[in-house]
Amino acid sequence: MGLEMEAVAAAAPAAAREQGVEIYPLSRYYFGAKDAAAAPRGLETAADRALRLKANFAANGLRTSVHGVLLVELFDHPHVLLLQVRNSSFVLPGGRLRPGEEDVQGLKRKLSSKLSVLDDGEADAEEEEDDWQVGECIGMWWRSEFEAIPFPYMPPSFRAPKECIKLFLIRLPVSRQFVVPRNMKLLAVPLSQIHNNAQVYGPVISGIPNLLSKFSLNVISD
Amino acid sequence: MGLEMEAVAAAAPAAAREQGVEIYPLSRYYFGAKDAAAAPRGLETAADRALRLKANFAANGLRTSVHGVLLVELFDHPHVLLLQVRNSSFVLPGGRLRPGEEDVQGLKRKLSSKLSVLDDGEADAEEEEDDWQVGECIGMWWRSEFEAIPFPYMPPSFRAPKECIKLFLIRLPVSRQFVVPRNMKLLAVPLSQIHNNAQVYGPVISGIPNLLSKFSLNVISD
Repeated sequence: MGLEMEAVAAAAPAAAREQGVEIYPLSRYYFGAKDAAAAPRGLETAADRALRLKANFAANGLRTSVHGVLLVELFDHPHVLLLQVRNSSFVLPGGRLRPGEEDVQGLKRKLSSKLSVLDDGEADAEEEEDDWQVGECIGMWWRSEFEAIPFPYMPPSFRAPKECIKLFLIRLPVSRQFVVPRNMKLLAVPLSQIHNNAQVYGPVISGIPNLLSKFSLNVISD
Repeated sequence: MGLEMEAVAAAAPAAAREQGVEIYPLSRYYFGAKDAAAAPRGLETAADRALRLKANFAANGLRTSVHGVLLVELFDHPHVLLLQVRNSSFVLPGGRLRPGEEDVQGLKRKLSSKLSVLDDGEADAEEEEDDWQVGECIGMWWRSEFEAIPFPYMPPSFRAPKECIKLFLIRLPVSRQFVVPRNMKLLAVPLSQIHNNAQVYGPVISGIPNLLSKFSLNVISD
């Protein structure tokens, strides 16, 4: 813990100190690979996809996706763990809830399917489930249409939002193994790189440093 | 409360529902004017200002400023109350803490001096003090140098930050009077206008919609 971090801790209000987050070095985590999950919709056309989303909305209403913000230390600075599918855009670990599924339960299932030896189905088995420590919801975004740009509020023109995107802070243990599907890369990206960088990371991820600013991040280096 | 807002409430997780914020119509608030506070440093040169800030830092260390995010309803959409001095940049109501002053106490003093009949000095008198309901700290920003761009995290290059800027959510009563110094304008600006609009509102204010997104905003219209 460097000098500047002591200054942060001293300056943080009591409430923020209670909202402390321990961030452990990247070097304490282990990384493995597992087979990629089958992509049942790999050959779906854009038109088919639009029809499917519309039918799902008619049947189940608002679609909710849940994502985890996982932090590690590198070069004395907090880094966010992001997934990259092939060389396309960056995403947070997470995904869509099943109809009726609870936020935290669904997020644990998704984190296991993206970041642990368990597959999506296996993660249902309670005895097998990872002990992801899902913290508070730190932000919510809304889409007016299925592929529209999301907003962190409900614009006055929205009649019935199609998707809600929720971000949860995940507290990582001092050490653990991450097992990532072979078709994805897991990257640790510094807060300073994603801040205000919507062009590369999109509107949701680029706002994460802002959402984390109220927390007292206790960056522990080796 | 429109249909879309019911959808939000239903979709919000239990934790977010507990973090509900009632937002009342702008029409329920009354606005008045009072004499501008004397500006003792109106004629200060840039060089004098730099010397003063350096001397203050040497004497008191990190400078902390505290600001309030006050929300009102207009056209079924949340608006943030911003102050504009003459026709220059927009600021949140608030200001710098005195050495040793507590965040919440200092913010109450500053809100009174900018938004109520009380002046800065008078607001010290406890029996006179306004009943500002100061909620949680929703964001913190850091400046490496006195006039530098602030960041919502401590960049690795920062050795000793010079200023910490803290944002607090203020819960307004159903009705009240705001009395604003004559040299300032109080404006209600929609979330949709300040979102991502750092060019007009600066990096701190333009991130407010993101910081508020986890709250369940209960927008009450007349």
